[in-house]
Amino acid sequence: MTDQNIYLKDVGLDEARAAWAAQLDAVGLVGRLGVERVPLVRAAGRVTAGPVWARLSSPHYHASAMDGFAVRAADTRGATETRPLSLAIGSAARYVDTGDPVPQGFDAVIMIEHAQRLPAEAGAPEGAIEIMQAAAPWQYIRPMGEDVVATELVLPANHRLRPQDLGALAAAGHAEVEVSRRPRVAIIPTGTELVAPGSMVKPGDIIEYNTLVLGAMAEDAGCVVTRFPIQRDDYAALRQVVAEALASFDLVVVNAGSSAGREDFTSRVFEDLGALKVHGVAIRPGHPVMLGVARAAIDQPWRAVAGIPGYPVSAVVTFELFCVPLLRAWQALRPPEPVLIDAVLTRKCVSPAGDDEFVRVSVGQVADRLVASPLTGGAGVITSLVKSDGVLRIPRFKEGHHQGELVRVELRTEIARVRNTIVAIGSHDMTLDLLSNALGQRAPAMRLSSAHVGSLGGLLALQRKEAHLAGSHLLDEESGDYNVGAIRQTLTPHGIKVMMLGFVRRTQGLIVPKGNPKGIAGLDDLVRADVSYINRQRGAGTRALLDFELRRRGIDPRRIRGYERQEFTHLAVAAQIASGAVDCGMGILAAARALDLDFVPLASERYDLIIPIEHYASEKLGPLLEIIRDPSREFAASVEALGGYDTAQMGVELGLF
Amino acid sequence: MTDQNIYLKDVGLDEARAAWAAQLDAVGLVGRLGVERVPLVRAAGRVTAGPVWARLSSPHYHASAMDGFAVRAADTRGATETRPLSLAIGSAARYVDTGDPVPQGFDAVIMIEHAQRLPAEAGAPEGAIEIMQAAAPWQYIRPMGEDVVATELVLPANHRLRPQDLGALAAAGHAEVEVSRRPRVAIIPTGTELVAPGSMVKPGDIIEYNTLVLGAMAEDAGCVVTRFPIQRDDYAALRQVVAEALASFDLVVVNAGSSAGREDFTSRVFEDLGALKVHGVAIRPGHPVMLGVARAAIDQPWRAVAGIPGYPVSAVVTFELFCVPLLRAWQALRPPEPVLIDAVLTRKCVSPAGDDEFVRVSVGQVADRLVASPLTGGAGVITSLVKSDGVLRIPRFKEGHHQGELVRVELRTEIARVRNTIVAIGSHDMTLDLLSNALGQRAPAMRLSSAHVGSLGGLLALQRKEAHLAGSHLLDEESGDYNVGAIRQTLTPHGIKVMMLGFVRRTQGLIVPKGNPKGIAGLDDLVRADVSYINRQRGAGTRALLDFELRRRGIDPRRIRGYERQEFTHLAVAAQIASGAVDCGMGILAAARALDLDFVPLASERYDLIIPIEHYASEKLGPLLEIIRDPSREFAASVEALGGYDTAQMGVELGLF
Repeated sequence: MTDQNIYLKDVGLDEARAAWAAQLDAVGLVGRLGVERVPLVRAAGRVTAGPVWARLSSPHYHASAMDGFAVRAADTRGATETRPLSLAIGSAARYVDTGDPVPQGFDAVIMIEHAQRLPAEAGAPEGAIEIMQAAAPWQYIRPMGEDVVATELVLPANHRLRPQDLGALAAAGHAEVEVSRRPRVAIIPTGTELVAPGSMVKPGDIIEYNTLVLGAMAEDAGCVVTRFPIQRDDYAALRQVVAEALASFDLVVVNAGSSAGREDFTSRVFEDLGALKVHGVAIRPGHPVMLGVARAAIDQPWRAVAGIPGYPVSAVVTFELFCVPLLRAWQALRPPEPVLIDAVLTRKCVSPAGDDEFVRVSVGQVADRLVASPLTGGAGVITSLVKSDGVLRIPRFKEGHHQGELVRVELRTEIARVRNTIVAIGSHDMTLDLLSNALGQRAPAMRLSSAHVGSLGGLLALQRKEAHLAGSHLLDEESGDYNVGAIRQTLTPHGIKVMMLGFVRRTQGLIVPKGNPKGIAGLDDLVRADVSYINRQRGAGTRALLDFELRRRGIDPRRIRGYERQEFTHLAVAAQIASGAVDCGMGILAAARALDLDFVPLASERYDLIIPIEHYASEKLGPLLEIIRDPSREFAASVEALGGYDTAQMGVELGLF
Repeated sequence: MTDQNIYLKDVGLDEARAAWAAQLDAVGLVGRLGVERVPLVRAAGRVTAGPVWARLSSPHYHASAMDGFAVRAADTRGATETRPLSLAIGSAARYVDTGDPVPQGFDAVIMIEHAQRLPAEAGAPEGAIEIMQAAAPWQYIRPMGEDVVATELVLPANHRLRPQDLGALAAAGHAEVEVSRRPRVAIIPTGTELVAPGSMVKPGDIIEYNTLVLGAMAEDAGCVVTRFPIQRDDYAALRQVVAEALASFDLVVVNAGSSAGREDFTSRVFEDLGALKVHGVAIRPGHPVMLGVARAAIDQPWRAVAGIPGYPVSAVVTFELFCVPLLRAWQALRPPEPVLIDAVLTRKCVSPAGDDEFVRVSVGQVADRLVASPLTGGAGVITSLVKSDGVLRIPRFKEGHHQGELVRVELRTEIARVRNTIVAIGSHDMTLDLLSNALGQRAPAMRLSSAHVGSLGGLLALQRKEAHLAGSHLLDEESGDYNVGAIRQTLTPHGIKVMMLGFVRRTQGLIVPKGNPKGIAGLDDLVRADVSYINRQRGAGTRALLDFELRRRGIDPRRIRGYERQEFTHLAVAAQIASGAVDCGMGILAAARALDLDFVPLASERYDLIIPIEHYASEKLGPLLEIIRDPSREFAASVEALGGYDTAQMGVELGLF
């Protein structure tokens, strides 16, 4: 191609889309790829290639709508209960089943229940019927064409076939229908470090799952997908596989590993077999995407090619922005209408000015407001897509949004699902996972969404009316009680009354590697030069407990190596220790057990649920509170089974503040 | 079973559901049918059988987030642009690609762009890097467990797997997932009169398409469906086929022909092989539904059985009310949340008091109001399901709704689709089908919905603000002009200003059978004793034209045989003539041509589009008006091709009234 190697770099989203579209247009890859005739039994979900006109009327004859007798309405005039009238079977009345044709010359049907059979006699050798009511012309007849008239439009072009459409097509005399050909999509994962799901992994191995995700997205868009085996980083081998794919697939996707060096491989292969039009788009995540066309050989047809970045969130975002619309357009499947809602943003979102940013958010309805919480984690965090209910797009040249701002979110889940979400923001505890699961079992329509921002963060979320409840374990230094002081400080001045509901007591301590190789016995060991620590974030109850205990013992936090490094959950702390990166961290026994670590108990603490009374009394929280208060204590038992939990106070009302 | 033959008859919907559910419960057919492990690549759309916990953390090691050098943050302290610092490669800095493990003992990564390579020298035999900025601890490192921490909840039970979920499962160390087994559904069509789609049909043949429709509905609900061959009306044969199906299917559906006699066959087979719990439910359509359990033999497992009525709308309604919820519950798939809207009813709906009635409605948005129009046609009219946007449920013991009443509609299409609907109510003309198709091509998101209620009905709909436009051809007896008089009578007094937009002139005449066997030459022949006529409904322009012409000629309508029988469209009139039921009817040439009939021209008349100015100027109607006014006259040409149309005035503004 003449413009080989002169691709657009770091352009805006709209420009990138337009440029690729123009390139595809130039090689004839715009619009429907082709049509095929399929039998109706395999046509559900397919898209009509053209308008479909009726070949037959339905019914294709005047049909009796009842079991009964076809008669001539004129013959029945004057029949009443007092002056019944008899009609000879054969000449004046003919038996018809529902669906039978009304015999020529007859123009009404009398229901069998309204016709008394009379025996045969002269003039009625087959017997007769006696009727007590006149028949209106055309009564109980489904006239020819009642449903469909031959030649009329049954379905327009570009219509996605639903079950009832198949019936209408058959009724109109069709056994097959002409539909858009399904696009064929090849997805080629590249990267020597990639391993298949379920493999035994060693450090450096990356489980390859983008082909699973992108493939399922393409299948949802109506395509036939082939997932290629993992390709090692070998230029010649990759070039050959791509060339093979170009021979028979409409779109060839190379999913790059995440390394910058590898990106060059892919772009060189594409340039060698065709031309890239776009290399790098000003979007976040997904910047290094490549878009172009290529062909297996000079005499072969052009195909669309896309180089999709390796980080899973980048991969999904770019595939959705660039590939899915193309795959749908190739079938004349119209784009799904986005569902847009306005929601209050629970946390500030800062965005680099040069990029269109796509922020994944979870959404819930608290009282009468929709609230959107940005999900943490970079482009490598696939679970942010799992937890996401929608996407907040921050356009280029806009710097972001403030906390509390009303923002427009493109919803990716049913709005009813959002309305049925109980929003928990606060301290993390593993029992919330169990509670979420128990809620799904008891009330399948309901969902518990928990964001982990620490105890104080949870109370502040309640203050801003962004959550239904907060898990909190904030030790009150003066009273020795939990949470009451913090509630009085953060919620009472704002007129927010809350129920403090007992949930669990749990053992806090130091999580240490299996066998406790450094012999850590308590907080005094944290200042040892050979001991490194991993902390929790400011506002976390565990952090408050540590700081309280350090102060009580007169230990200067600055003497602890790693005091400044923070994780946001117990499990994340435990994972750091399991990896060998640090020697200890404070957390709960369950987290240590989960990762097979050892544990030095320090104290037992209360973890309560703080629930504003307007929600505590609400119907919405009913199923959740029933689980917590369940007299069978089934849920409590599952919590105790984790170890390190005492559920004696679960469901007890500890006070109204 | 002890209660054999003692089934509930004609009970209410809720009672019927509860009774069947109790019967299914008694034989263990409630809840998940079973679980199976499937590889992730085939798991999209399946439902998790239990909570899924992470086996692996992701990343499962501390991973570099960049291509660059792993360093110890402490070693980099003090580096600035003016005082660069050098780190020996090997001991103080190690090259890492993105995704590589950060070597033990290192705790930060410096991007390759920020590291200047220095040559080897003493103390740095592998060379060194020079840096101009200190590294913060853990910078550019994706810590172990950033995405998923081993043992945490990845997905709850009863979760329908989306593409991103497959990625999260793989990241968490899974290659397979345990999901609900798909229910197996057998659909058995019965009826000697049934023929397969695409057959050559003769009067009395009914095209069997319910298995297509019900099968696609069951597939949409996640089931594996087998459509059985058509069964003739033979008790022993049907019993054998049902028994065979009971051996291996979870739900066996017998789709009865529409005859009352046949219903008994099905119920006898079910009673013989098990027990019906419900026979006849007070719903409309769908009354004769049967629900029960049966088994292939005494030592075989129980299965659910349903006898579904033969009329297609009854079949869909009952399958949706009774079978789909069961099929979903068997997979622990939660019921879809209904989307409910309030809409103004455009026509009165009368309902028999004893039944729950399900009325199919089309829905559009006119100005700021949603309007719902009940679709005509009985339980045999599958196209009413094709045109339907939602369902209005009229509960038992309620008699119906008035015109103009605000009713609650369960929407079955996207609300955006409703918002993008142009509502045409008025006289029928075949060119509206062409226009609808052209609109779908030009503006795929838009849709033209047309309801055929005659010209006057259309103007009255504009008066009530229920439509965007009305097709009208009302001859003004005094002026000889079209529509102006009627607009002045129906719209002007209500302050509604409209544009009268030229659309087509069309030839009206008498449609007669091929060859005109009765030699009909004009209206004077209508009073002949051997000629029968089929009329259009009151308010139709064609009816007005007929009445005008009859009056002008002094012909008494009562002398015309069939004057009182009415059809609502040109094509329906033509279909009556094609069937041989009547000898002639008034209509347009295109309708005669479509069904290969002959035509006796009487007059040419104007068919205009009447459009309130608020809509005429609206963005919504833009694409439609562009098609009509298209300078290339592509659409006009397609209309002329029908025959009998003159499009000279198409798109001409004939006046503002």
